[in-house]
Amino acid sequence: MNDQYFTSRGSVRNYSPKPISDQLLEEIIEKASHAPTCGNMQLYSVIATRDPENKKKLAEQHFNQPAATTAPCILTICADFNRFERWCLLNDSKPGYRNFHSFVMALTDAVIFAQQIVTVAESMGLGTCYLGTVNYNAAEIAKLLQLPDLVVPVASLSIGYPAVAPAPCDRLPIKAILHNESYRADSDEVIKEFFAPKEEMDENKQFVKENNKKTLAQVFTDIRYPGDLNETVSESFAKIIKEKRF
Amino acid sequence: MNDQYFTSRGSVRNYSPKPISDQLLEEIIEKASHAPTCGNMQLYSVIATRDPENKKKLAEQHFNQPAATTAPCILTICADFNRFERWCLLNDSKPGYRNFHSFVMALTDAVIFAQQIVTVAESMGLGTCYLGTVNYNAAEIAKLLQLPDLVVPVASLSIGYPAVAPAPCDRLPIKAILHNESYRADSDEVIKEFFAPKEEMDENKQFVKENNKKTLAQVFTDIRYPGDLNETVSESFAKIIKEKRF
Repeated sequence: MNDQYFTSRGSVRNYSPKPISDQLLEEIIEKASHAPTCGNMQLYSVIATRDPENKKKLAEQHFNQPAATTAPCILTICADFNRFERWCLLNDSKPGYRNFHSFVMALTDAVIFAQQIVTVAESMGLGTCYLGTVNYNAAEIAKLLQLPDLVVPVASLSIGYPAVAPAPCDRLPIKAILHNESYRADSDEVIKEFFAPKEEMDENKQFVKENNKKTLAQVFTDIRYPGDLNETVSESFAKIIKEKRF
Repeated sequence: MNDQYFTSRGSVRNYSPKPISDQLLEEIIEKASHAPTCGNMQLYSVIATRDPENKKKLAEQHFNQPAATTAPCILTICADFNRFERWCLLNDSKPGYRNFHSFVMALTDAVIFAQQIVTVAESMGLGTCYLGTVNYNAAEIAKLLQLPDLVVPVASLSIGYPAVAPAPCDRLPIKAILHNESYRADSDEVIKEFFAPKEEMDENKQFVKENNKKTLAQVFTDIRYPGDLNETVSESFAKIIKEKRF
């Protein structure tokens, strides 16, 4: 990893068919397991899906996006208080982890671990892509992977060797995301300036045109992340958290 | 970052007084902003606290743990849909992000970004420590940092130059966290084996003794992360999410 690594990295949405061996997978997970974790409890698990039939079923839950269908392996990272609770019960203690805060602790732990998997994989020449769809069909994914109580899928990563090197993505200017001492109240004009370069990109202008929209924001609010879908997923995701006893 | 980096890293809980300059802070944030993000929306913000008076007040909300009091800088990373919603409203579109799913999207984005800050900082010889206490006093922290609607603190990092090099921490065996194709139902004996090396460590035996407990698990369930505290934080954290209009 050289000095350019951080700014030149990108997600991979098309993979070569080269498989991920057990040995490679274990090396990645071992390295990533040294990521920071809450109270050294490691409140996560990862399920690796490489079997073609299983991968096909799982990719369907991710709407068959190419990042899922072309990858030799999908990793489903779960918030997991099951293992820790069982250990507590086997050791004469009274665990109190069936609640929302414990879910948030485990979710945070799991996402830290997922991001460390990304960094480890990239340091070894592999590529990854988060499948944000994990939240949409969490209950179905939990069923496919036979997840027990206190285990909820929270991050999915496709992983493999890139078919082509990923291109780095544009980002907001630093000023937009960094605040000193307290949250800065930016004017409407400043907010517009932050997003203007994004709106000017040919690729994004094309998106607006293809979708018959007037603004780039409408592509997000009407098509990519519409309110009614967000409300539906809010309900189904809250339901699976409860069903898994958090 | 060499091949040993991932397995030898550790969190830093004692810092040298050497300050973090604006230039260094901006370099870290710029590099970390190229972390993966949901739909390239960058649903996060970071508030840097370096002013001694502000830092004192913020450290109090983190129970004055040394990782907070000795650090020259505390970064509060927030799930932030405020900036994106404002941009949508300024662009003739109808955002639908005032719901639980949107909070989970932003939380996930923020934690990915936080972990990238950790990796960037460590690649530059700095140290960091997550302050898990961020969830405990989220409302008070939001007030101190003047967070507006749709902005909730979800990860706090102390950052600075280590006073002493951090020691790597023990971790569970890979088999405990990695599952192939579906979640493996381990026997009680296997669960015990996973945690046995932890229970055998002198440091952990000392913890049990100092706290007058019978098992290491009791240190977690009775003292470090007790059920009644988890229930209280569940309520207060759910409340701040709602108060901030998610």
